[in-house]
Amino acid sequence: MSETNNAAEFTTVTVLGGGVLGSQIAMQAAYHGKDVTIYDPFQESIDKLPARWAWMRKGYSEDLADFAEEKFEEAVARIKATTDLEEAVSDVDIIIEAVPENLELKRETWAKVGKLADERTLLATNTSSLLPSLFADSTGAPERFLAIHYANRIWKQNLAEVMETPKTDQAFVEKALTFAKETGMVPAHVKKETPGYFLNSLLIPWLNAGSDLYMNGVGTPEDIDNAWKLGTGFARGPFEVYDVVGFHVASNIASTSEDETRQRFGKKLKEAIDAGFSGIADGKGFYVYDENGKPVSPNEFFAN
Amino acid sequence: MSETNNAAEFTTVTVLGGGVLGSQIAMQAAYHGKDVTIYDPFQESIDKLPARWAWMRKGYSEDLADFAEEKFEEAVARIKATTDLEEAVSDVDIIIEAVPENLELKRETWAKVGKLADERTLLATNTSSLLPSLFADSTGAPERFLAIHYANRIWKQNLAEVMETPKTDQAFVEKALTFAKETGMVPAHVKKETPGYFLNSLLIPWLNAGSDLYMNGVGTPEDIDNAWKLGTGFARGPFEVYDVVGFHVASNIASTSEDETRQRFGKKLKEAIDAGFSGIADGKGFYVYDENGKPVSPNEFFAN
Repeated sequence: MSETNNAAEFTTVTVLGGGVLGSQIAMQAAYHGKDVTIYDPFQESIDKLPARWAWMRKGYSEDLADFAEEKFEEAVARIKATTDLEEAVSDVDIIIEAVPENLELKRETWAKVGKLADERTLLATNTSSLLPSLFADSTGAPERFLAIHYANRIWKQNLAEVMETPKTDQAFVEKALTFAKETGMVPAHVKKETPGYFLNSLLIPWLNAGSDLYMNGVGTPEDIDNAWKLGTGFARGPFEVYDVVGFHVASNIASTSEDETRQRFGKKLKEAIDAGFSGIADGKGFYVYDENGKPVSPNEFFAN
Repeated sequence: MSETNNAAEFTTVTVLGGGVLGSQIAMQAAYHGKDVTIYDPFQESIDKLPARWAWMRKGYSEDLADFAEEKFEEAVARIKATTDLEEAVSDVDIIIEAVPENLELKRETWAKVGKLADERTLLATNTSSLLPSLFADSTGAPERFLAIHYANRIWKQNLAEVMETPKTDQAFVEKALTFAKETGMVPAHVKKETPGYFLNSLLIPWLNAGSDLYMNGVGTPEDIDNAWKLGTGFARGPFEVYDVVGFHVASNIASTSEDETRQRFGKKLKEAIDAGFSGIADGKGFYVYDENGKPVSPNEFFAN
């Protein structure tokens, strides 16, 4: 018994790339009744999917109040995977690309897909760090192409940032917003191409403000986080968020900044990585965490 | 039965100014066992204090899980008010100034107080918009002078930002941190003078990032807020915070910016005020609020 009903605009979904996020996009669509195909050029990626479903089953069951085991099993059954690109993309309602963040790879992938896909198909990239207009023309149909940006743990952080390029037809923007809603996501429409979409456009200035205070000797990470949390009532301060993001990602971003203070911050994070701290994932970042991921004390490394 | 015990470093507290925040600082200290004197040059301000205690009694009882009516009444009894400056300041452990945000008035006030206060007394300003070093020398004792910055609804948002000037003696910084803890506050030590302390240093870039996205036509306030909340799990997005701050304050800040986009945002907020919207306080800001202060819909005024 499929959840797909006659009112739904989308029936078939193809996801390009069966990695961490591609597999989550596929499951989220299948869990909401879509027939899903995953294309991945590597059989070993496809072989890993059962382990990914097991991990997601745990996440869905823990995080969704209305989780139904049977519904999840039906979703798994609705997902097929293939290494044959033509079979995957030639007759579907939407194609969502989640291949690695490499511009040449995106261009090559979309050039092939654009030739094989049907003229009705909505084309979407999940890129997080590249502007979609950089490879829109590769599709051969930039008017049907846009970005739908998902976050990790998609079933819980169910935000879909739908971003058009200057060439996207508004009818396809509307379709993408509809697709997001049909698959349990809350769409947010980014009406002009913006690096970082909405979320990172807000997060990065806030994180930078925190690291600037710290690097300029104005305060400790703990005091800065406490001021934010007590003053706003929000759940986490900037240094707790740095620990979630992880020092590898954060140091790379900071190091590419032209601002001297942020470069120093990137260097400090790299020193921390060398000293064995990289964030909540390994239990030590700006804070030391217990086995449940709760901060128990500030990390002495950042005390001065 | 006073809460003050022999271990406490602070016994007597004087607050200069019995206004909205001065009266809250006084009550918070008295509720934690201090003997408090409020100085205000205007008898009519002093006459308003009973009404302020009634408002705070409601706040304390609603917000504090361990609220005790008797303890609150004892606190009221421990607060005396006077229009006599010499009587108020000559023999106390700490003087906290909460007079209006006018540099000349702060300088005049501290010049008088500095002459009258004892040499042991810790001198603190609650200024939010002026750097304390601008009037530190007026005290005649800049080594004993610093800022302790409180937020509105002090009993709930119990953050005390303790900010030193380049002339403050570290022993008095330590005393201020101790005073904060002895009065139920969580101190955050701002080690270098910074406009906006920690909290506004983090809030303002984040709020600016939100208003820039909106003013540049990238998205609606609702979509931007949703992206933030879903992406971070935090309680409110930037436009909900603008509604809490209020358009009068926000438009004044934006209008003083040298950035053209922020000036336009300030103008937009002023137009909204003229149209009858100023934030959550009057039920309509970026959102329309119900009688419980919950947003029920976006305000059409900001739809485009």
